[in-house]
Amino acid sequence: MTLLALLDYTAVLVFALTGALVASRAQLDIVGFAFLACLTGIGGGTLRDVLLDRNPVFWIADPVYLVVACAAALLVFFTAHLIESRYRAILWLDAAALGVAVAAGSGIALALDQAAGIVVVMGIVTGCAGGLMRDVVANEVPLVLKQGELYVTCALAGSLAAAAASWAGLTPASGAAICAAVTVTLRAGSLAFGWRLPVYRARPPRR
Amino acid sequence: MTLLALLDYTAVLVFALTGALVASRAQLDIVGFAFLACLTGIGGGTLRDVLLDRNPVFWIADPVYLVVACAAALLVFFTAHLIESRYRAILWLDAAALGVAVAAGSGIALALDQAAGIVVVMGIVTGCAGGLMRDVVANEVPLVLKQGELYVTCALAGSLAAAAASWAGLTPASGAAICAAVTVTLRAGSLAFGWRLPVYRARPPRR
Amino acid sequence: MTLLALLDYTAVLVFALTGALVASRAQLDIVGFAFLACLTGIGGGTLRDVLLDRNPVFWIADPVYLVVACAAALLVFFTAHLIESRYRAILWLDAAALGVAVAAGSGIALALDQAAGIVVVMGIVTGCAGGLMRDVVANEVPLVLKQGELYVTCALAGSLAAAAASWAGLTPASGAAICAAVTVTLRAGSLAFGWRLPVYRARPPRR
Repeated sequence: MTLLALLDYTAVLVFALTGALVASRAQLDIVGFAFLACLTGIGGGTLRDVLLDRNPVFWIADPVYLVVACAAALLVFFTAHLIESRYRAILWLDAAALGVAVAAGSGIALALDQAAGIVVVMGIVTGCAGGLMRDVVANEVPLVLKQGELYVTCALAGSLAAAAASWAGLTPASGAAICAAVTVTLRAGSLAFGWRLPVYRARPPRR
Repeated sequence: MTLLALLDYTAVLVFALTGALVASRAQLDIVGFAFLACLTGIGGGTLRDVLLDRNPVFWIADPVYLVVACAAALLVFFTAHLIESRYRAILWLDAAALGVAVAAGSGIALALDQAAGIVVVMGIVTGCAGGLMRDVVANEVPLVLKQGELYVTCALAGSLAAAAASWAGLTPASGAAICAAVTVTLRAGSLAFGWRLPVYRARPPRR
Repeated sequence: MTLLALLDYTAVLVFALTGALVASRAQLDIVGFAFLACLTGIGGGTLRDVLLDRNPVFWIADPVYLVVACAAALLVFFTAHLIESRYRAILWLDAAALGVAVAAGSGIALALDQAAGIVVVMGIVTGCAGGLMRDVVANEVPLVLKQGELYVTCALAGSLAAAAASWAGLTPASGAAICAAVTVTLRAGSLAFGWRLPVYRARPPRR
């Protein structure tokens, strides 16, 4: 298995776990679990492939991705009651999935020799779109837009690191590792220690 | 007209009726009716065509689909007040559209010789995506995620039936008929008799 | 720069301003501003390009579009407090962007020799989809569906004007100008003077 496929598998698996956990909070049945797990797991990579016109889309070329997402749904369906805070589990699994997916997305754009700006966008799209679809469909506040937390910022920093690593001549594997590490570290720091950027605050208008 | 085109026309028409009924509940004007009717009618098939890279998308190849959806919007605009419960009308029309669209989606994937897993997914996507877009845009609780009802499950069962029929050597027409029958029967049973799968219920954690 | 690229640049810039203003109302950080600005700015044109299978998508072919959207985000981040009513600013900038984007979308479909129905749909998609994505992601009531206002209607009228101008043999530049003028005039009339179409109102059912 190539490095990029391995990253995609891991991202699909971990995002699918978060989708299934959201399904458990919404008290859906097993098919609802599988639906949200697949949407979250393959959503980001699918958007990336459609935008880059990669044919066929990764999970059509290899339907095992769907099996992985459904297995994650099954696992969560029978074990979610063992978890003390499903919301915290979603946040932390989502952070891990974000790191891997950003590495997968930027790696694939680099392998296609895209411009640096496109590499960065594809990292962000692959990392953020699946979770965004999950939250919009399940009608939760999108993690992407949660005030006072780093989310897209982590994906942006990770993608920039991947682009820089490639520009510096590092191997794709090192680049992916650095990218995932930067993304997860920033996101974990935001979750655990409240790292954040200054947010916009309305000041009274001049007159 | 081929069988697959006929299925697509029917699905577009009936889904468009549900979109227009949602517009009537939101008290939109005639263009709002046409917008929601087109979105709901062609949304699922469009996503299917983009994912399968069918070019051009079905309603670009044949804009008559748009005429059908707009005619449905016009019909509902002038007759919706005759319906006693528009919400019940939406539910039952949506059930009929779901059956036809799942048959269209799985049939097209079979005609393209896709793997069984992809046939099943395309049936689900074609069946569920239009209604999901309608509900997300109109800010209603998506039917897809309504607790304690079968929805994606019906599409899944119908697609599996279509794949099995094709594997057993039945003609595409028989396969489509079986697929639509399975889907609509399950959905109607869920609406009328409360058929359902066990839902996830949080049990107290072990400690 | 060709006329169509100029229209796309302008639409991206002005839509990006509206996305950033929505981000300021949600008190996001600078990366959140850039995210919503890019989504709103390039969302409509991206959907158009995916549907028409234009490869590569316009902002992948020319990443300067992303720079424009990010610059708009930066500008708003530092100046939004100077604006007295950000909601009014969003409405009016959105009206201007709508006009330009409809002209860009219908112009590109005309340049590809699409059927008149597709030209109209591409005008509407390019004009409305970016703002719709912005509103769905930010969980605001979509402008597209606001009761008692013209929105999709303006895009429809503008696109019809563009198709008619092309049919009448006018130059693309005149067609684009007429299209944008029709769209913006209708939308401005709706905002300023309350122009509207009759909305559907439930009458008591016959029995």
